[in-house]
Amino acid sequence: MQIAKIQSQLQALRNNRLFESTVIAVILFSAMVIGAKTYDMPPSLLSLIGVLDVVITLFFLAELSIRFIGDTERNQFFHKGWNLFDTLIVAISLIPIEDSELALVGRLIRIFRVLRMVSVVPELRILLNSLLKALPQLGYVILLMFIIFYIYAAVGATFFAPINTELWGDISIAMLTLFRVMTFEDWTDVMYETMAVYPFSWLYYLTFIFLTTFAFLNMVIGIVVNVMENEHADAKAAQAEADGQLSLNDLSRQISELKALVQTQQQPQQEKIEH
Amino acid sequence: MQIAKIQSQLQALRNNRLFESTVIAVILFSAMVIGAKTYDMPPSLLSLIGVLDVVITLFFLAELSIRFIGDTERNQFFHKGWNLFDTLIVAISLIPIEDSELALVGRLIRIFRVLRMVSVVPELRILLNSLLKALPQLGYVILLMFIIFYIYAAVGATFFAPINTELWGDISIAMLTLFRVMTFEDWTDVMYETMAVYPFSWLYYLTFIFLTTFAFLNMVIGIVVNVMENEHADAKAAQAEADGQLSLNDLSRQISELKALVQTQQQPQQEKIEH
Amino acid sequence: MQIAKIQSQLQALRNNRLFESTVIAVILFSAMVIGAKTYDMPPSLLSLIGVLDVVITLFFLAELSIRFIGDTERNQFFHKGWNLFDTLIVAISLIPIEDSELALVGRLIRIFRVLRMVSVVPELRILLNSLLKALPQLGYVILLMFIIFYIYAAVGATFFAPINTELWGDISIAMLTLFRVMTFEDWTDVMYETMAVYPFSWLYYLTFIFLTTFAFLNMVIGIVVNVMENEHADAKAAQAEADGQLSLNDLSRQISELKALVQTQQQPQQEKIEH
Amino acid sequence: MQIAKIQSQLQALRNNRLFESTVIAVILFSAMVIGAKTYDMPPSLLSLIGVLDVVITLFFLAELSIRFIGDTERNQFFHKGWNLFDTLIVAISLIPIEDSELALVGRLIRIFRVLRMVSVVPELRILLNSLLKALPQLGYVILLMFIIFYIYAAVGATFFAPINTELWGDISIAMLTLFRVMTFEDWTDVMYETMAVYPFSWLYYLTFIFLTTFAFLNMVIGIVVNVMENEHADAKAAQAEADGQLSLNDLSRQISELKALVQTQQQPQQEKIEH
Repeated sequence: MQIAKIQSQLQALRNNRLFESTVIAVILFSAMVIGAKTYDMPPSLLSLIGVLDVVITLFFLAELSIRFIGDTERNQFFHKGWNLFDTLIVAISLIPIEDSELALVGRLIRIFRVLRMVSVVPELRILLNSLLKALPQLGYVILLMFIIFYIYAAVGATFFAPINTELWGDISIAMLTLFRVMTFEDWTDVMYETMAVYPFSWLYYLTFIFLTTFAFLNMVIGIVVNVMENEHADAKAAQAEADGQLSLNDLSRQISELKALVQTQQQPQQEKIEH
Repeated sequence: MQIAKIQSQLQALRNNRLFESTVIAVILFSAMVIGAKTYDMPPSLLSLIGVLDVVITLFFLAELSIRFIGDTERNQFFHKGWNLFDTLIVAISLIPIEDSELALVGRLIRIFRVLRMVSVVPELRILLNSLLKALPQLGYVILLMFIIFYIYAAVGATFFAPINTELWGDISIAMLTLFRVMTFEDWTDVMYETMAVYPFSWLYYLTFIFLTTFAFLNMVIGIVVNVMENEHADAKAAQAEADGQLSLNDLSRQISELKALVQTQQQPQQEKIEH
Repeated sequence: MQIAKIQSQLQALRNNRLFESTVIAVILFSAMVIGAKTYDMPPSLLSLIGVLDVVITLFFLAELSIRFIGDTERNQFFHKGWNLFDTLIVAISLIPIEDSELALVGRLIRIFRVLRMVSVVPELRILLNSLLKALPQLGYVILLMFIIFYIYAAVGATFFAPINTELWGDISIAMLTLFRVMTFEDWTDVMYETMAVYPFSWLYYLTFIFLTTFAFLNMVIGIVVNVMENEHADAKAAQAEADGQLSLNDLSRQISELKALVQTQQQPQQEKIEH
Repeated sequence: MQIAKIQSQLQALRNNRLFESTVIAVILFSAMVIGAKTYDMPPSLLSLIGVLDVVITLFFLAELSIRFIGDTERNQFFHKGWNLFDTLIVAISLIPIEDSELALVGRLIRIFRVLRMVSVVPELRILLNSLLKALPQLGYVILLMFIIFYIYAAVGATFFAPINTELWGDISIAMLTLFRVMTFEDWTDVMYETMAVYPFSWLYYLTFIFLTTFAFLNMVIGIVVNVMENEHADAKAAQAEADGQLSLNDLSRQISELKALVQTQQQPQQEKIEH
């Protein structure tokens, strides 16, 4: 009885606006603490930040506990990706780390706490989910782009490796160099260097730029068309709702019924009259 | 009586085409004076420009007074953003500034007078308003982008600060460096430098570029879809206007009425016949 | 009689496919001659090219004469922009130029002969016309962009001129520098230089980039929406054509007529029965 | 009889899912072997790779034979582009190459074996076909862009060749330089160099950038509108399918029929009553 009461109280707290605002404020504050750490600071401030860090971690632990206990379906709590993410971030923050190697991991975890913003603000969660949902539909364009990159990188590493090992040493470095060419970042320097040995290597770069630009454009257009279609489907559903789900078909059926009515009307009349 | 007459005359002047053209011409001339000041000039010309400056300021003061006095709702004159902007620009221009520090502010104000072009030409005002109206709808995408920037900047400032203080010294410099990476401006120089220490740091840059490009694309698509929807809504309203607000629903109701009419027609006939 | 016959023959020749192909072939050949001239060549080839130049010029003169004489509305021949362009190009080619200064103009004119491709191939002419038609509709966005450029250039020339005269010397050089910043071309070099004096000048660059990117995006979206609307209008016209210009309004009228018919039918029947 | 049986068995094998997966796996493996070759390796591994190369070639030969024999329309096997491509790749791989010059060609052919991925995975084949299908529709925009490039390159090679032979030496090098300017790659360096001699040459670069950007935008919009139209046509066909191909025209006909029915009903009644 006691437990059920506590649980319902926590559930109420969980859905409380003030509670949500407090959590967002603490996340923002933790983000500012992280930012502050990157500046040179006197030791006194540094130790204060250390204390704040512990306080924030404990607050997040308490908040997560409230969320967990207040959840109506506690079994499925960890089935939701964001809950798992939140728990991991808090759990790793709790481990005391002394080792200098792992200390970096600890700092990274504290930085990723800013991402909790996305898990707490519903609008951001929806936005990110819709972004991630768009990705797999572009799967084949990305695969095609990877094939283009791989083939050009293999060709580049085969022919240009002796010219500049740092840019074309092996296939993975060559792919990085090609990504650089794709962003147009000092790509002519890369080209002029190989053109000194292979005068026709500009063909290699130009075809690569054309192919990747074209594939990239297609990806963008794919996303645009995708988004538009969803919008259109929504607009259509709203229109159908407004029309009471009426279609030309329904109108046609109505007219047919009317026709049948007129025809049946004709017969009894005739019969009656014939008497 | 006298005052009302003056006011109506000023109101007429205010809506006069010639008056508007003169104002635009003076703004253009003031823009040219501003441009001319950036060139090296003999002292005689400089003093001429000083005189012109005063003349332009006085003209703007007169124009604004006409607008104010000629306004039918003088109480709400300063409720409009552009009127406030115009008044501020003219008011600050009037303050005589001798101090060399404030002289720069005075020069800035004179430059911003070119912006009066937007406040005077209605088409530009509408355009700017529609641009500003599109911004808040993109709020969450911009927030998400800021979170991405902040996290990457925190990571960058934590790990890369010892490598290059000028680029990664603290979180604000790191954000500027990341903006540079986002514009592809010599981003490989930044990357190669950190790759010398952390060979896998290319992952940091590539994921950052992918995320921001994707978020940016989404923002662009958001604007496009937004604009399109407004266009569609306008087109639909125009279509509805042309159809006399007819919908499939209206047609359906018409057919139903016809059906009812045919049915009621049947009954009296039958009754009559049965006699 | 004789003249009319010649004219009709020329008119036939003018619309002849082979004639058109020949003209295109000569333009292509003249383009190749122009390209060839940029390579180092032995004197014998150079004199050959000189001869070819004269032959091409004479061919163009003959072709233009045929077009002119064969035109049914010779009075309005020069009212068409492309005809005027063609005539000017040919006329200036005919002037013998010895002066080394003017020789460059002569070479330029010969290069612009390649543009005759656009005046001869109808599809290219249509494409270019539609491109040019899209421009004025974007007028106010371009004007707004120019105002942004002008204000930023005035600010830049005022504050940054002492830092780097080559980049910020006067307002026109400053506008060129800002265009460079807009294309992201080594813009950080420009920024770091001014940040050494004004540490907050990154605000100047970032706001400029945001404003111009936003205005540019708007321009692009403006073109897209424009093109789409034209497409939609075409599609709608085609649909209306297919529907025999039918609208929901027409259907509604048809139903109303039917209703009236049913009602008028009722009355005579009743009258007849009452007898 | 025997042959027919083998053929039908091969045909079954050909359409087998496991067979397809195996082929994809071997292509992926061959891609990895190609990638591995670009790294420095001990001689033992190199000889292993040589053996793997032969095994892969033989596997592809076997696979292609199965495809060919199992094809129901063997006469038209080579009419399909991808079959021809596959056969060429395998055939050239089979030729033993010793000559160091041709050895490079052999390596290239082995790299292009990765492209077999596209020929084997149907989704990629469809994607690439649709990409290629979009190209010719953009033919005239590409032609216009080439004319712009050619004219500017001719002007550049004529005037700027003495300034920098490496960038403007002849028309083909000038076109490459202009492509570089179009990608904004250190274009200001190119410009500042020529501005030292011709102070107004910034006009050359700015007009070129405006024209190519505008033409490029038009190309992109062309693709977008194209894709959208196809989508709309598909959506419309689906809608028509859902409506049972109903149009406003059909409804209008139905109403007309009903009208005729009501009219014919009137006459017999009247006749009957008149008796």
